[in-house]
Amino acid sequence: MGSRSDWPTMEAAGEILSRFQVPHEVVVVSAHRTPDKLFDYAESAEERGLEIIIAGAGGAAHLPGMCASKTVLPVFGVPVESAILRGVDSLLSIVQMPGGVPVGTLSIGKSGAKNAALLAVAVLGAKYPHLRERLKEFRRHQTQDVIDNPDPRIMT
Amino acid sequence: MGSRSDWPTMEAAGEILSRFQVPHEVVVVSAHRTPDKLFDYAESAEERGLEIIIAGAGGAAHLPGMCASKTVLPVFGVPVESAILRGVDSLLSIVQMPGGVPVGTLSIGKSGAKNAALLAVAVLGAKYPHLRERLKEFRRHQTQDVIDNPDPRIMT
Amino acid sequence: MGSRSDWPTMEAAGEILSRFQVPHEVVVVSAHRTPDKLFDYAESAEERGLEIIIAGAGGAAHLPGMCASKTVLPVFGVPVESAILRGVDSLLSIVQMPGGVPVGTLSIGKSGAKNAALLAVAVLGAKYPHLRERLKEFRRHQTQDVIDNPDPRIMT
Amino acid sequence: MGSRSDWPTMEAAGEILSRFQVPHEVVVVSAHRTPDKLFDYAESAEERGLEIIIAGAGGAAHLPGMCASKTVLPVFGVPVESAILRGVDSLLSIVQMPGGVPVGTLSIGKSGAKNAALLAVAVLGAKYPHLRERLKEFRRHQTQDVIDNPDPRIMT
Amino acid sequence: MGSRSDWPTMEAAGEILSRFQVPHEVVVVSAHRTPDKLFDYAESAEERGLEIIIAGAGGAAHLPGMCASKTVLPVFGVPVESAILRGVDSLLSIVQMPGGVPVGTLSIGKSGAKNAALLAVAVLGAKYPHLRERLKEFRRHQTQDVIDNPDPRIMT
Amino acid sequence: MGSRSDWPTMEAAGEILSRFQVPHEVVVVSAHRTPDKLFDYAESAEERGLEIIIAGAGGAAHLPGMCASKTVLPVFGVPVESAILRGVDSLLSIVQMPGGVPVGTLSIGKSGAKNAALLAVAVLGAKYPHLRERLKEFRRHQTQDVIDNPDPRIMT
Amino acid sequence: MGSRSDWPTMEAAGEILSRFQVPHEVVVVSAHRTPDKLFDYAESAEERGLEIIIAGAGGAAHLPGMCASKTVLPVFGVPVESAILRGVDSLLSIVQMPGGVPVGTLSIGKSGAKNAALLAVAVLGAKYPHLRERLKEFRRHQTQDVIDNPDPRIMT
Amino acid sequence: MGSRSDWPTMEAAGEILSRFQVPHEVVVVSAHRTPDKLFDYAESAEERGLEIIIAGAGGAAHLPGMCASKTVLPVFGVPVESAILRGVDSLLSIVQMPGGVPVGTLSIGKSGAKNAALLAVAVLGAKYPHLRERLKEFRRHQTQDVIDNPDPRIMT
Repeated sequence: MGSRSDWPTMEAAGEILSRFQVPHEVVVVSAHRTPDKLFDYAESAEERGLEIIIAGAGGAAHLPGMCASKTVLPVFGVPVESAILRGVDSLLSIVQMPGGVPVGTLSIGKSGAKNAALLAVAVLGAKYPHLRERLKEFRRHQTQDVIDNPDPRIMT
Repeated sequence: MGSRSDWPTMEAAGEILSRFQVPHEVVVVSAHRTPDKLFDYAESAEERGLEIIIAGAGGAAHLPGMCASKTVLPVFGVPVESAILRGVDSLLSIVQMPGGVPVGTLSIGKSGAKNAALLAVAVLGAKYPHLRERLKEFRRHQTQDVIDNPDPRIMT
Repeated sequence: MGSRSDWPTMEAAGEILSRFQVPHEVVVVSAHRTPDKLFDYAESAEERGLEIIIAGAGGAAHLPGMCASKTVLPVFGVPVESAILRGVDSLLSIVQMPGGVPVGTLSIGKSGAKNAALLAVAVLGAKYPHLRERLKEFRRHQTQDVIDNPDPRIMT
Repeated sequence: MGSRSDWPTMEAAGEILSRFQVPHEVVVVSAHRTPDKLFDYAESAEERGLEIIIAGAGGAAHLPGMCASKTVLPVFGVPVESAILRGVDSLLSIVQMPGGVPVGTLSIGKSGAKNAALLAVAVLGAKYPHLRERLKEFRRHQTQDVIDNPDPRIMT
Repeated sequence: MGSRSDWPTMEAAGEILSRFQVPHEVVVVSAHRTPDKLFDYAESAEERGLEIIIAGAGGAAHLPGMCASKTVLPVFGVPVESAILRGVDSLLSIVQMPGGVPVGTLSIGKSGAKNAALLAVAVLGAKYPHLRERLKEFRRHQTQDVIDNPDPRIMT
Repeated sequence: MGSRSDWPTMEAAGEILSRFQVPHEVVVVSAHRTPDKLFDYAESAEERGLEIIIAGAGGAAHLPGMCASKTVLPVFGVPVESAILRGVDSLLSIVQMPGGVPVGTLSIGKSGAKNAALLAVAVLGAKYPHLRERLKEFRRHQTQDVIDNPDPRIMT
Repeated sequence: MGSRSDWPTMEAAGEILSRFQVPHEVVVVSAHRTPDKLFDYAESAEERGLEIIIAGAGGAAHLPGMCASKTVLPVFGVPVESAILRGVDSLLSIVQMPGGVPVGTLSIGKSGAKNAALLAVAVLGAKYPHLRERLKEFRRHQTQDVIDNPDPRIMT
Repeated sequence: MGSRSDWPTMEAAGEILSRFQVPHEVVVVSAHRTPDKLFDYAESAEERGLEIIIAGAGGAAHLPGMCASKTVLPVFGVPVESAILRGVDSLLSIVQMPGGVPVGTLSIGKSGAKNAALLAVAVLGAKYPHLRERLKEFRRHQTQDVIDNPDPRIMT
């Protein structure tokens, strides 16, 4: 993520990855304050054995797109809610990439961070069948939770 | 895609997949006009051997999200430019998924369709090393093309 | 509604329906977490004797549109105010339906929920004359309340 | 509708109503240029035997809401695409009604006009069973048309 | 104004008018809940001796435009900040009037209410020279207040 | 107006003023290119006998607000449609004036220019009764034109 | 800046200038309330020895653009977050200047004020080499701070 | 600039620089397709003797911000009008930089490119007095052109 202040948003991704027991690292790399570190990080990601990069950033959010420009690994971007424009600037800065260098963009804020991790699990499921099974189990629970409590007026 | 009228946008995805020799199928499935077909399609996708779904739609674009609700395969969404609101409605309808059911969203229009295919190739590269190699080659060409023609005033 | 968290908004619809003594049921059905239940619900609604469906949802709000795709009953949609984009995403996801499958959309938030119920009463009034009479009475009271207190500086 | 210039949009509603053989009248009534006529029209609509009002207008689109303020019949609003702001102004002026006086709002432009008529048919279907049957038939055809031509690359 | 809840905004207009000793009345007239009263009010305004109407409303703010449709007096509109869309809906509903029926629109919220009153004073100044003098005095004080305290770091 | 390129928009104001036989002058004064001329113009307007200033400008449209800062005459602002943001920038730059210095803002583009002139006529009507009479006549014709041709399908 | 209420935003610029020991003055000059003072200020700025003007304003933010119209010194504009539209109006009013009179615009709010000062230091660095050195040092610290604390979960 | 397709916009900057006889180079450097070249370019710019960087880009426009992250030279950014969102995405991606790394942003499109060059001339004027003189001359001509043709109805 681009700043320590993005952690309250991005930890939702960490929780999902931990729950699915997907090994991962959590690093602050700022596109604007540490551009060289960003380049090293993204360039070496594949040979270091990373399989997917989840990048969260806010405002003029250049981190996901610049990661994507330096690696052929899939990059998923999370628009962090910005203080002033509520993440509209983050969203457009991440999603509107030009043809040739994709960033798979999730929704603004914590739900986007959670979903970036779930999308990573879905992608990894092709190679690691146990992850696909865990994802199916996760989705079944998610469904069952709504079905068990259909009436919102009954507190459970 | 949700409508035949989305093809001029989505064919950019088809071109990339053909260029990378990734087998794929092209189908119109409308969330609103053929909901049952959509459910059958998404539900059977995994056992039919599909590995990724790219879904393009415009306006109140429900196709990518409803696909994602019916499969654990990765779903990438392409907001098709709408006639009136230029794809802002499509973008928000696709990207703002709630936590639990992700859609990796690309940019509005043809560049998004192209990028959805490139992101699919990036994902498949983990399992099919030759695709990763082709993607690196594609990116090298893309880079070289800019480097060879740095001055926009010289027609090439 | 799509989530228990929509209840504080949607209960304004319930209050109106109760006030007009219109029998109704309140159910959480999530387009993304319980798609099969959504399809069963919408598909069986007519034969179960429902006459109108009011669907409230937020963010990439697919519930009203997917209900509408599975029934010929009138569907009224309520954009629930979303935490980040304040319901603009909900509104566009609900109202921008393609030609062929309509959703009558109300305003964002509680006033929209209240109005969805009032619109339902207006529709039912064609078949149930006592409801039309009650609606006229409701409107008269609403008008009189403003007329009785024209000066906002006088506390009443 | 509020102006003769709205007809190219609103005729899509007329076509649907004619196709379903629903008797209807087409009138220009301007909220701003003919306010008295608007009031007479809306106030007398019920006793003249109208069952539903479809109101289309653009810009500061006050017609649907002011109709709704003068009748207890259901009012459906169509935001006509405006020349400059593309109907965003029309949409917000129609949909953001305060609690107490509802307007069921459809999508911007021709698809919204078409859908207003289809929603009217859905509402009328409760009282006129043959309309409900015709609507089911219409929907079946609509679905079949997509299913018969699933591949957008094959011209039909 | 359209609702008692608009008073905290609109009282800024009342304060200016009182300060300039301009006789005025403060009335809640709702376009949607009391349309007949609105019509009577606007229609009789000229013969009752009113010279200017200031109309404040929020959301689908039809009050200023409908006043303007029923009188040839100048109408100034104040977009009241709405709870959800912050007055963007109010602003567009008031300012985007069609050619033929003008509403002079001020800024969203309290500053707009204050300015509507100041604009009314400016207009009345043509007929009542003492008001023009008071306005010049008001403006001189306003200017002097900034000049006397040019450095924001010095508390005064 | 701020630029010769604003004339196709602003001439709609000129046409109305000519039609009502209101003496007026048409001048290009640019806030950014001729600031001194703007100040002279606005500062001397009252003593030169002007009664109202209509100012049209596009983009970062500072002309109306800066006029208003230099005169106590009523200033009406017309947001000229800008090439890129369609006048949203013009509208916000004109209407969002701070408390203390009002600009009565009309709709974006030609209809706004027309309405600025009609609002000026309404204001002048207090002092010049024949203008009020002409305005009533104008409004009657405008109303009658809609009433005479209520059905948009009949070409007249 | 245009108002004392802009100081909580603009003091971030003052802090940077003080830190870099760049002599500067802090003045409230309102485009709308003190237009003559604004003109005097901008017109005399060059001969008074100022080298750069940083102008912060909110809403219909005319201060930066009007400064730029009266001087050939570089003008940097800071959109102050407005209470209602969150600075979108300020941003568009400042950045959308017509060709011929530039304002270099920074981001909305405190980060923009900080950056205006840093950009001023960058500009001054061409003439004052010690400022360029200090800026490099500042940037090195800024970079190091991120590198030293890459994991956001470790409190430092 | 980020792409050859940006040239029709950015050549307006080249024209101004040529007119002022400011030596400059024109290069396509893509943040996403040639990230290494971008880093080399920005990192070596100062020692190569560049004094200012003007960077134009569209969509998720990362070029200006990434340049700024790799140099202490002033960077001015031009949001190129994008095909679909008209440059709103470009503008937000460029202007909303985080505190610490500034980009002075100009208006969207050609006027912004022209103004970026004029702002560069203003900055260079501190060091090269003849440029300041030429800028004053340019501004005088610009002013005179408006003054000589105040009435837009007279074609010149």
